[in-house]
Amino acid sequence: MMSKGLLIVLSGPSGVGKGTICRVLCRENRHLVRTTSLTTRPPRKGEEDGVDYHFVSEKKFYELKNQGAFLEWAKVHGNFYATLAGEVEELRQKDYDVIMEIDVQGAAQIRSSSAEGISIFLLPPSMEELWQRINGRGSDTPDAIKDRFKTARHELMEVWKYDYVIINDIVSRAVKDIEGIIAAEKCRVERNKKFLEDIIGKR
Amino acid sequence: MMSKGLLIVLSGPSGVGKGTICRVLCRENRHLVRTTSLTTRPPRKGEEDGVDYHFVSEKKFYELKNQGAFLEWAKVHGNFYATLAGEVEELRQKDYDVIMEIDVQGAAQIRSSSAEGISIFLLPPSMEELWQRINGRGSDTPDAIKDRFKTARHELMEVWKYDYVIINDIVSRAVKDIEGIIAAEKCRVERNKKFLEDIIGKR
Repeated sequence: MMSKGLLIVLSGPSGVGKGTICRVLCRENRHLVRTTSLTTRPPRKGEEDGVDYHFVSEKKFYELKNQGAFLEWAKVHGNFYATLAGEVEELRQKDYDVIMEIDVQGAAQIRSSSAEGISIFLLPPSMEELWQRINGRGSDTPDAIKDRFKTARHELMEVWKYDYVIINDIVSRAVKDIEGIIAAEKCRVERNKKFLEDIIGKR
Repeated sequence: MMSKGLLIVLSGPSGVGKGTICRVLCRENRHLVRTTSLTTRPPRKGEEDGVDYHFVSEKKFYELKNQGAFLEWAKVHGNFYATLAGEVEELRQKDYDVIMEIDVQGAAQIRSSSAEGISIFLLPPSMEELWQRINGRGSDTPDAIKDRFKTARHELMEVWKYDYVIINDIVSRAVKDIEGIIAAEKCRVERNKKFLEDIIGKR
């Protein structure tokens, strides 16, 4: 019924499993695509340029930032991350629903700049579980892990600013919950103005 | 995660098929129950007292109304309809999600009295289809049918005041849409305050 795809912001603390949820969602829903973030962080093992991230230099990052090319950007643990506004808009115009898997700083920028986005906060089943997930990532030093966990605790407090909250205990269930949210949002009266006016006339 | 069942108001123009959708929804979802409306209208063929409606006299209706027993009430085509507030509250306390299949007048009362209800408007696939459905009910005089159709056109304009809109073209699809809305609403941050405070502390 809608004339343009949805913008879905999936966020949550570091280590909560945003990436996995996002990949499964996009694999199982053809109308849903995720944006490829830019980052100045070096690739982790197995990460591919242009697929997992666009890996760029800090110089290139600042160039794009100064051009106003970013929908959101954030500095997390010393590295920059961003989303290209043009990429998101183009996909939505093609009627794709766009999901952005971003940290809480970036999500706050989207919420303040665009009222039409849907924000979903991903919660760990428990603080112990979050600790284990951060600990088990295996690519950071002990100090980096402690820093990451401390940040995660602060990030959790951001949940109050979101539209929806999902617990990431079982991936398939979290995915199903998000699919339900997307389907429901498409039924919102305010998202179907044009369609409704065509059928029953203007307000 | 929530401590109390949802209140879902399903409304729409006369003849749009609210009753069918509501029956299928409650049959397929054990957590979902519908309230039994009171009415002063005489039973139609096949309707059972206490199942389809509580059939009451006008005298009894006014008695209950004066006691403040109704969550909403309406006069439609010369007959009164109402929902008992106590019945709804009791079910929600038992953690059932309560769905109320009511006309647009009653729905307006719920919206103005309770911010926590979810309102869903059921739309016919087309005005022609609505005409055929009203025409085919077979229990009304030609004048009553015309009156019903005219009312339905006005009722359609109420859609703008609702949270969600669903098209009743295929029953199974409309049912699935409503199930998605209910699941999504349960993930709303504001409906999970207590649960979130227990996990991450107060705001």
